[in-house]
Amino acid sequence: MEKTNKNITSRDVDFAKWYNDIISEADLVDYSSVKGSMIIRPYGYAIWENMVAVLDKMFKETGHVNVQMPMFIPESLFNIEKEHVEGFAPEVAWVTHGGSEKLEERMLVRPTSEVLFCDHYKKIIKSYRDLPLLYNQWCTIVRWEKTTRPFLRSREILWQEGHTMHATEQEAREETLRMLKVYEKFQREYLALPVIVGKKTDKEKFAGAEETYTIEAMMYDGVALQNGTSHYFGQGFAKAFDIKFLNKENIWEYPYQTSWGCTTRMIGGLIMAHSDDLGLILPPNIAPIKVALIPIGNSDLVSECIQNLEESLKKENITYYIDRSDKSPGFKFAEAEVKGYPIRIEIGERDLKEKKVTLVRRDTLEKIIVSDNIGQVITEIKKELKEMQNNLYQRAEKRRNSMLYNADTLEEFKNYAPKPGFILTSWCGNPECENHVKEQFGLKSRCIPLDDQISDKLCTICGKPGKYKLYYGKQY
Amino acid sequence: MEKTNKNITSRDVDFAKWYNDIISEADLVDYSSVKGSMIIRPYGYAIWENMVAVLDKMFKETGHVNVQMPMFIPESLFNIEKEHVEGFAPEVAWVTHGGSEKLEERMLVRPTSEVLFCDHYKKIIKSYRDLPLLYNQWCTIVRWEKTTRPFLRSREILWQEGHTMHATEQEAREETLRMLKVYEKFQREYLALPVIVGKKTDKEKFAGAEETYTIEAMMYDGVALQNGTSHYFGQGFAKAFDIKFLNKENIWEYPYQTSWGCTTRMIGGLIMAHSDDLGLILPPNIAPIKVALIPIGNSDLVSECIQNLEESLKKENITYYIDRSDKSPGFKFAEAEVKGYPIRIEIGERDLKEKKVTLVRRDTLEKIIVSDNIGQVITEIKKELKEMQNNLYQRAEKRRNSMLYNADTLEEFKNYAPKPGFILTSWCGNPECENHVKEQFGLKSRCIPLDDQISDKLCTICGKPGKYKLYYGKQY
Repeated sequence: MEKTNKNITSRDVDFAKWYNDIISEADLVDYSSVKGSMIIRPYGYAIWENMVAVLDKMFKETGHVNVQMPMFIPESLFNIEKEHVEGFAPEVAWVTHGGSEKLEERMLVRPTSEVLFCDHYKKIIKSYRDLPLLYNQWCTIVRWEKTTRPFLRSREILWQEGHTMHATEQEAREETLRMLKVYEKFQREYLALPVIVGKKTDKEKFAGAEETYTIEAMMYDGVALQNGTSHYFGQGFAKAFDIKFLNKENIWEYPYQTSWGCTTRMIGGLIMAHSDDLGLILPPNIAPIKVALIPIGNSDLVSECIQNLEESLKKENITYYIDRSDKSPGFKFAEAEVKGYPIRIEIGERDLKEKKVTLVRRDTLEKIIVSDNIGQVITEIKKELKEMQNNLYQRAEKRRNSMLYNADTLEEFKNYAPKPGFILTSWCGNPECENHVKEQFGLKSRCIPLDDQISDKLCTICGKPGKYKLYYGKQY
Repeated sequence: MEKTNKNITSRDVDFAKWYNDIISEADLVDYSSVKGSMIIRPYGYAIWENMVAVLDKMFKETGHVNVQMPMFIPESLFNIEKEHVEGFAPEVAWVTHGGSEKLEERMLVRPTSEVLFCDHYKKIIKSYRDLPLLYNQWCTIVRWEKTTRPFLRSREILWQEGHTMHATEQEAREETLRMLKVYEKFQREYLALPVIVGKKTDKEKFAGAEETYTIEAMMYDGVALQNGTSHYFGQGFAKAFDIKFLNKENIWEYPYQTSWGCTTRMIGGLIMAHSDDLGLILPPNIAPIKVALIPIGNSDLVSECIQNLEESLKKENITYYIDRSDKSPGFKFAEAEVKGYPIRIEIGERDLKEKKVTLVRRDTLEKIIVSDNIGQVITEIKKELKEMQNNLYQRAEKRRNSMLYNADTLEEFKNYAPKPGFILTSWCGNPECENHVKEQFGLKSRCIPLDDQISDKLCTICGKPGKYKLYYGKQY
């Protein structure tokens, strides 16, 4: 019989409830008295801290520096770029009073910071020598969502937003794709997510952008999670904000802009791509705690082994947790499964007398008997962590591939539309076809796959000559 | 003749203008269109990142974990603890609308998060087994200040706030002092600030706290900067929020609480304690860039030396910057002085032919001729960085000591009151004496020195028997 955890709904029975159970049982989030906002608890926040550390290093290696902008935007500043305002105005929080006084001009809490960066750029960009400016900011943003879910859609979001300015269009376009690739690498290598990378259609692009690129991950239930976007703005904002620089030919010119961001929503992605009915499963490369040591009984032999293991794990920089509570071994094992520690080591006197300990891998739940020689245990841990990281990726990729469909005709599309997953179509480029799919089937276009954009087939929806390949799917 | 920088007002002529000049010339901050808020530019933010990295490690080593609370507080939640509300209500920003809808209940942007943590604690604290809870949060807070100055007093502040809950009074009191000591250690060892550590009087303590401890730094102009505080709350908030736990005797009890915080204001403290008329001076232990390499000319000999130095600096994890601009050497030297790089190395062909390079220490401006043997250069760099760190501390301490006065009588107090610096008094414990000093001399009490609290002299102000020693001074 399959193992179960009585506090966790099966993901095949009720996926939404399963997600909430995982988040609550693994102590990732608490709901707050502040409607629509979440409290990220220590274990959840530790995952975010790891994400931040890795991404921040990648941003710095690609030449970016961090800055901090104000969190408020005066209404008049926000109103400068028209498309941008229209995209965000319905979902912003307004500050109208400071202390007991009404403000002369109301301010919104930033939903994103393009206008703040542009306002600053206008002052500091004068010459081509000042370019490129490669800025990033770690902060929280607010979007006044009606319906919220922890990590996936929240009124307050932790994120990073890169904002860059360049002397040439080519350089800005390269930057847009460079950062998209950084996101892709991070999600594949750390989050073990077999993401689909591509370009958004005009209909789905960011308010004010010329082009939006996206990282689309597929969840266990076949629904898409947009896990990071990178935008090319051209000179739109620069013109609206009158940002100009003297180029090498001594002529005033507008610079070219990009922005790119990813959020705590990636934690939601991790959960929905990898976890199971026993709890969280975290890829070793991003897990805050890689190994749980579980003593069975408290004999001297057990204590000594734990102590030796602890020393070696410290030396090897492998994060660990020791469950010294007075709970039963079975209870501790279940808890380690809920928390998704990649490896647990069961250390009992009976085993130690036979010179062995038991490793259990969280993804496969496979029991691995190892000699109690500390060096051998450490070697085995490293090997299993690496294998688990690969296995999670492959498992997610296999699952994803089983939910990718090709639809060449409207008939085929109709057939696949009710199924979970993504449908690859041929598209004529007309937004009418996108609208039709949304209205008739409730699916949104995901992206034009980056490395395979051109279609030579007829448009799946209208039958006219196709231009691009285009994925459709439901989304979180 | 003393060297000067024409863009920087002398600190002895106009200290406030000098401060603003340093901040602007060293590219630390830009003023934004958002009144009262600042933009922290890359070089300023890099200082904060270093502060965060060191402090976060110290917090984790003392058992603390990070969490993230919402930035908004519903008005009714904020109103639960009375003293706290009264202390903060005049200076909060109110959110009244989400999108186009008026909120049913208005919310404030957190000026501090005690009530948010208490609201969460109420749900997660049930038994003594759940205690202690040792939480910290890195975030921004908003206080609607009328008059603002970069880093010192700003509407939006970057900070950390520790919030902990304990099963016993003793444990909570120990925590309050433990974190005060962490701040003290950080400020002495990294910021090179000879801080005075002590207890606030009832009049000056935090709204809602039973006791407030403080780190007081003295600036070059003799004015105090409160550079970190640690509060003991007793059971006040716990009672107001009805947070209870079952203790070991199986009896319901209110837990004991602390909070502690420090902010970007420490950057202001760094500037005003150490810098001079040529620009910023940063203690090596916190400086984002420790060494500036300045090529003079671009001969092969110079390029080769730079390249070798770069490799060795990287290997030694010593951060560096190479000024490859086409500006004149004199201009580059001045710029390195403005930015406060602890050491600059001038590398020219003439010197290299004589097998030497020149190091210049930012604090003393002393020129040190060293053999161009890379190993020897690195050894010298390490030695000078260490010496500079010590020298800055000693210099600041000497300056501070020259502005510390002892006043045993009101006559003496009157004599010292107009001078820059702190005045140590004997205090009877009556707030009337503090009020008198504030009204008559415009000075506020700083603190009762932690390790030397008791006074056996008469009260400096009223002449009645004294109880405590108490510092007075002007404050930022």
